[in-house]
Order: sequence, then structure tokens, then C-alpha cells
Amino acid sequence: MILDSNDISAMTTRNRAALINSLSGYKSANLIGTTNSRGETNLAIMSSVVHLGSHPPLLALIIRPGDDERHTLSNLLETGYYTINHVSEGLISAAHQTAARYQQYESEFEATGLSEEWKNDFKAPFVTEARVKLGMRFREHQVLEINGTNLIIGEVELIEAPEDSFREDGSLDLTVADTVALSGLDSYHKPTTLKRMAYAKPDLPPRELD
Amino acid sequence: MILDSNDISAMTTRNRAALINSLSGYKSANLIGTTNSRGETNLAIMSSVVHLGSHPPLLALIIRPGDDERHTLSNLLETGYYTINHVSEGLISAAHQTAARYQQYESEFEATGLSEEWKNDFKAPFVTEARVKLGMRFREHQVLEINGTNLIIGEVELIEAPEDSFREDGSLDLTVADTVALSGLDSYHKPTTLKRMAYAKPDLPPRELD
Repeated sequence: MILDSNDISAMTTRNRAALINSLSGYKSANLIGTTNSRGETNLAIMSSVVHLGSHPPLLALIIRPGDDERHTLSNLLETGYYTINHVSEGLISAAHQTAARYQQYESEFEATGLSEEWKNDFKAPFVTEARVKLGMRFREHQVLEINGTNLIIGEVELIEAPEDSFREDGSLDLTVADTVALSGLDSYHKPTTLKRMAYAKPDLPPRELD
Repeated sequence: MILDSNDISAMTTRNRAALINSLSGYKSANLIGTTNSRGETNLAIMSSVVHLGSHPPLLALIIRPGDDERHTLSNLLETGYYTINHVSEGLISAAHQTAARYQQYESEFEATGLSEEWKNDFKAPFVTEARVKLGMRFREHQVLEINGTNLIIGEVELIEAPEDSFREDGSLDLTVADTVALSGLDSYHKPTTLKRMAYAKPDLPPRELD
């Protein structure tokens, strides 16, 4: 089935959002933890954390204007810190529920039954129940003129992950860490590993690792 | 296991790249198709396509400086068009091989055995063998000062996906489309659906769809 720009424009807002959100492929599922200077905490599920570079270790985060940016954006700009916590299988329902429109004085931690974990004077709450937790220092904020979306860039200052998920080459095995993937607006997936590929070279055919 | 900034800095370049590339969670796996004015085509695997907005339908793409930006970036800036093709299970080896350092006059299509598909005067080649194919019009290019990474924003002008992967709500079922997910630098995964969650509301507990 083929859709062109006219077909896409003609869709209802809701159906178009469901479709366009499916197009990028599988997405990361992360809980972003923040606090403000009054100590009110916030936790928000986001599907747009992406790798930006390894040295320095940088991740980018897209925060949509409107509802999504409430609290998370103002908090991280205020304190300069935030946490990224992988959603694992047991956390899906609570993680998804953080997207509900709670008031600023209501913490999504309390509302969803997840627990705040404070580490090393780090100025943002981690999710105790998460298996992979990243402490992030805010580095840069840009508002993309094309649609008012916020691009947040942060540097990884702390990494916590289960001992047995670290491979010898330094990478994390996300299937061992029990991390889930998102697709579209509402689908949560458990990935299994098909293969690992060796570094590609023009004069060699594709080879699997191991 | 916990690593701080000093631990991260102390890692070898290769191990740090493997680790930091694992941190964002699961990533999209897409082949980016382009051509230049001499008709030389290029195909490159990228793991950083992210949703930016639905109206207009916008996707962002991070292109690392150096090797990754060769050909893909110059081509799409020259023609104003590119394609995004989901990597499906049968395409993993060929898709991964496009990351090899081929010369500009060598097309990754030919080198990897994938076929070019030209549609509706669209000025970039699609991958015939892909099941989900997007025709993209280039809208914006920013070089992120923090590490020289390129942020490319494009508008979706054409969507092709298998008839049976479209759900009634407009979304695509990526498990039906056979799309795979990436993690780290080299791991390819097949996701299965755990659950779909209903729209979250503060006064209702989390509910599964269906």
C-alpha cells in the first residue's frame, strides 16, 4: 500500500499521529527523572533518546512542545541534571502511565508506584526499579524552528547496569538487561537477538560475530 | 555495576564506543538511499532516525561526522531527497555491509546485492527488497557545535508498507512488517509484542488495549 502527501494530509489527526509515530522503526523506551528547586520530582516516558557521540559520551533527547515538555524540560533546565532509566518488562504499565497529565505538585513516582533513588548528590532522581540507569548532565538546548520541538543534549556522567549485562567488548547486552523497545505510540516489545555482525569491510563479505 | 565519568574516560576508544552506543536502548535500523547529480547512488545503514512530529510529518536523522557523513550527506543536500528503508530480517547482512568504506564511485547497492527502485520521479533510490519504504524531502540541516554531528530534518512525502501491517488506527504493526531493531554497534534483534497500552489518564489505572 502506498500513501503520498495528500493521503497523509487527509488522515484524521489521531490516525496520522499513530502512523507517523510508527515510521522511524523501533524506538527506545526510557523514563526521564527530574526535580525542581522545590524538590518536586517528575518522571516521564520518552521514546526519543538517541546516541550522539561517545567521546564525550553524549545522548540527545527530543521533547515535543506542549504536554511533553511540561515539568521535565523546566526541571532539567533549572537543575542542570536528569536521569535516563531503561523501561524493562516489569515496568511497562507504570512507565506508560507517567504520560498521563498529572499536575506539577503530583509526582509521577508516587502516582505510578515507582520509587525515587538518590545517588552521590546527583541532582535528579533515578528509578529504583530500573535495571539500567544513567545520570545525565545537561549540556545544550535548542528549539527546532521547524515545529517548536526541543532538542536536549546531555553528557553521561554515571552508568549503572546489571553486572551480567556487560559484555567483554564494553557493550551492554540489552536482552540480559531486560530492556524493552517501543513502536508507535503504545506498543511495547521484547527483542530477541538474531545476530551480531562483525565490523564491515569493503573487501570482505558480511560475517557474523562468534 | 556502576561507572562514573572517570571510569568512562579510562576505557579504550573501542570499548567506550561499544558501551555508549548501547546506552540509549533499542534503536531503529534503516537504510538511507541517496544519489548525486552524476547518478552515483549510495546506501548507508543508520540507527538514529527519530520521530519529530506528525503534522507536518517530520523525521530527524543524526549523521556522525567523518565516515558516516560521506556521500549520504552530500547527496541529500545536493538533490534535496533521500529514502528511508526499514531493515527487515532477511536484509540484515547486506544492510550491515553498507557500513563498509566503499569509494564514492562504488554503489553500496551493487556491492551488497540490494536493488535500486525508482518511483514517481522521486530523486532518490528506494531499496526494492525493503518492506517499509519512505520517500523523504530534505527540510533542514544543522551542525551541532558540541561535537560536529549533523542533524538532518526531512518531511515524509511517500509511505509504502505491506497492506497487512496497517492497523485500523493508522499505525503500522512493525512485527508484521518484519522490521528489526538494533542495539549497540552490531546487534540485530527481532521484537515480539508484549502489550499495547491505552492512552494514559491521571484518574484511571494503566489499561492494556484489547
